[in-house]
Amino acid sequence: MMKCITLITDLGSRDGFAGVMKGVLLGRAPRVPVIDLTHEIAPGDIESAAFVLMTAWRHFPRGSVNLVVVDPGVGTSRAPLAIRKEGRFFVGPDNGVLTWACGSRFDAAVELRNRRYRLVPESRTFHGRDIFAPAAAALASGVPLLRLGPRRREVLRLPFPAVSEGRRGRRGEAIAVDRFGNVVTNLDEKLTRSRWGARRLVAVAGGRRIPVVEAYGAVRPGAPLAVFGSAGFLELSVREGRADRGLGLRRGSRVAVEPG
Amino acid sequence: MMKCITLITDLGSRDGFAGVMKGVLLGRAPRVPVIDLTHEIAPGDIESAAFVLMTAWRHFPRGSVNLVVVDPGVGTSRAPLAIRKEGRFFVGPDNGVLTWACGSRFDAAVELRNRRYRLVPESRTFHGRDIFAPAAAALASGVPLLRLGPRRREVLRLPFPAVSEGRRGRRGEAIAVDRFGNVVTNLDEKLTRSRWGARRLVAVAGGRRIPVVEAYGAVRPGAPLAVFGSAGFLELSVREGRADRGLGLRRGSRVAVEPG
Amino acid sequence: MMKCITLITDLGSRDGFAGVMKGVLLGRAPRVPVIDLTHEIAPGDIESAAFVLMTAWRHFPRGSVNLVVVDPGVGTSRAPLAIRKEGRFFVGPDNGVLTWACGSRFDAAVELRNRRYRLVPESRTFHGRDIFAPAAAALASGVPLLRLGPRRREVLRLPFPAVSEGRRGRRGEAIAVDRFGNVVTNLDEKLTRSRWGARRLVAVAGGRRIPVVEAYGAVRPGAPLAVFGSAGFLELSVREGRADRGLGLRRGSRVAVEPG
Repeated sequence: MMKCITLITDLGSRDGFAGVMKGVLLGRAPRVPVIDLTHEIAPGDIESAAFVLMTAWRHFPRGSVNLVVVDPGVGTSRAPLAIRKEGRFFVGPDNGVLTWACGSRFDAAVELRNRRYRLVPESRTFHGRDIFAPAAAALASGVPLLRLGPRRREVLRLPFPAVSEGRRGRRGEAIAVDRFGNVVTNLDEKLTRSRWGARRLVAVAGGRRIPVVEAYGAVRPGAPLAVFGSAGFLELSVREGRADRGLGLRRGSRVAVEPG
Repeated sequence: MMKCITLITDLGSRDGFAGVMKGVLLGRAPRVPVIDLTHEIAPGDIESAAFVLMTAWRHFPRGSVNLVVVDPGVGTSRAPLAIRKEGRFFVGPDNGVLTWACGSRFDAAVELRNRRYRLVPESRTFHGRDIFAPAAAALASGVPLLRLGPRRREVLRLPFPAVSEGRRGRRGEAIAVDRFGNVVTNLDEKLTRSRWGARRLVAVAGGRRIPVVEAYGAVRPGAPLAVFGSAGFLELSVREGRADRGLGLRRGSRVAVEPG
Repeated sequence: MMKCITLITDLGSRDGFAGVMKGVLLGRAPRVPVIDLTHEIAPGDIESAAFVLMTAWRHFPRGSVNLVVVDPGVGTSRAPLAIRKEGRFFVGPDNGVLTWACGSRFDAAVELRNRRYRLVPESRTFHGRDIFAPAAAALASGVPLLRLGPRRREVLRLPFPAVSEGRRGRRGEAIAVDRFGNVVTNLDEKLTRSRWGARRLVAVAGGRRIPVVEAYGAVRPGAPLAVFGSAGFLELSVREGRADRGLGLRRGSRVAVEPG
């Protein structure tokens, strides 16, 4: 398997920032492919970046380095981090953005203090280029994690929205809206099915009861549906339409699932 | 020549979907470069994807695999396909999106049924990741087309807008508008020139007669012009401006060409 | 160090133009990585492209080729160019877009006339594909610069906005606004510090006096600040906000710096 470096940033695609980071990666880890997951995270939107990382990282080979630069705290005292978990590496600021993927059961975390793996002189505003990219390149080149800086016992955690188990059903919320207007919830397929098995289910969202189906084709065009989606969570959709507009949902909206 | 995998999707660049597909490609076809043609097709816009594919595929080496994920029918009974033509492969849903490129004279088509070349378990909503990317990786790695599934005699065809030959001229329509506001028609350079040779021509569009010129520089800034463009079709342009707005044209607008 | 080809264009990411250029590069320079700096330059915005190139090119290894296709004069008599400077190559139209990076002290410039390094037949509208990409691929493959065409003594220069040294301070202007709303000026860190050393400075912009600080963390969230940024120029920012909107600044706005 060929390892790679993945990128999740809020740097956009207009100013050349992500490309410059790739120049640094190319100079320091010349044979490692770089894969853009997204540069279109809204500026400073840590939750969206955490969600993309959580859904993506298992699709890349062991040895891969997942580099996240969504860093509204650049130029403050927040630490730069690298974490190892299940043979992968995660590099980014200590603002919680890595923790939906890494959880609490990672192997080790370090603070990126070793100046040998930074650009010199480093800027005050673009640690993606000057601190995070050199660290990612080092890890992708086989430099041991613990050489990048001192071990960190604690990292800042971003709380993952909780699901409450009610008598009738499981109550959660919308955690992401994708480009098609599909609304992804925190209602996990495995836990939901372990409670009710193969019983027929409905989602309750936007004041409506929506059937949980096996595929979009189960309803007619324009009709709402719920389906356990590609990230392993219940999603609200409108066939050939947008569930966010059609059902009046956005991130944080309440969504429940119960036997139908 | 080095083959590659090209991507045309409507997955956007915000949610990480295309990047995850690249993770699957990297894991299964590690040494094959992947080139993004576009991920910004409007959701479900099969015609736009068919047009980009039609204009692009000849610019990639033999052996290349063109992967198209514009799939409004995911989760219905539409089949997933792979087609071979002139030494290239085309992978995508059986909704016509491949047919402006492949026409009716391709070598072979199969339905992607072999589960060895799919992700397991596969999702209900993201066949780009679970079915199409593994098939593209297999073809790029040298797996024979016919190993991916049973042969298909028929594929769904997307009708290419017809040109009618009138007494005075050829009547067609706008089939694409690019980011610069250039309006591409279905009036093919070869067929048009075979009718009238090097005669001076005019385009008739938006109620105006517009000179067919050799290059943008032939008119003054702000003036409309028509030119046989880089895709081999007549295009309407406004020098240093936008022809879609300036001439009130959009996809489907009538455009004719005749001796001037 | 592994050389690469970088791309700066105004071709956007919707129509497949940049991907087709990559097909040409792959066919002619198969082992050279291609890095997108941006395809989102506003159509014809030569200054923005010149700025991205100026801030980016030093981050790529020697031998790299920087290809710029922002070419509002395609189809006029403007010449296609290649320039060599400090072991790197720069390819693009002779409209000034290369000159903020290359300045007046480059090694050599040629006009791209050798048809061996062009696509045949070439289109009237897409020289990025037909002229510039083949030239970049040739240079990345080791073809000597002077083989691409006749030497050019003069290239069109895009004037870099001047800074005036006043009695109280240095007066310049905003030259770019990034996706975060940071406003980059032409007030260079080295020249500014060589005048006043480590003295406390203020920026004067939008009718306000704004402290020049070491990092975003020096002010409270929502407050304006100025900082010498990652491109080596003074930038106006609002911590966790947008300086363009907050301070009413855009490209061309006057900005001064003086002891505070």
